[in-house]
Amino acid sequence: MLTVAGGQALAGDRSAGKGKARVCVACHGVDGLSRMPDAPNLAGNSELYLRTQLTAYRAGERQHPQMSIIAKGLSDEDIADLAAWYSAIKVTVELPD
Amino acid sequence: MLTVAGGQALAGDRSAGKGKARVCVACHGVDGLSRMPDAPNLAGNSELYLRTQLTAYRAGERQHPQMSIIAKGLSDEDIADLAAWYSAIKVTVELPD
Repeated sequence: MLTVAGGQALAGDRSAGKGKARVCVACHGVDGLSRMPDAPNLAGNSELYLRTQLTAYRAGERQHPQMSIIAKGLSDEDIADLAAWYSAIKVTVELPD
Repeated sequence: MLTVAGGQALAGDRSAGKGKARVCVACHGVDGLSRMPDAPNLAGNSELYLRTQLTAYRAGERQHPQMSIIAKGLSDEDIADLAAWYSAIKVTVELPD
């Protein structure tokens, strides 16, 4: 759990996250929809899930050739901002027949 | 890589996958959009990504309290069918202002 002094959950800044997401676009798209077959869609996932995965990559609990490297350089604030941005993207779905 | 004899990639059966996905609905929704804060959206992810994650959970390379248990019981065919179903769900997004 990303917290600030006093144990409060670190609030993410969505617009800061949009800017920080520029490094993610090649694989995850400008809109959070994957552009690479081994990369997931990020759009509309919960902040908790996104924070948990980025933290897991940073801590080495989850591994991926690119993500393990990228996540190493992320601060708690970066993670909170990125999660705020991607979770704010609205997703609608259409089930196949 | 899920393959059949002769090394050909195991083709997934989307409608079989829809049926098998009934056990996933509580967390991942009927439409592949997460209903639990710690569960990701599955809708529209690539077959490769979905297969890779389910295989990683089954092999213990990736861990999650529920997924590690659920994935243990999945056959290669189950994984291919589930991936075929969720990847066939069409996703559209709307970026926040």
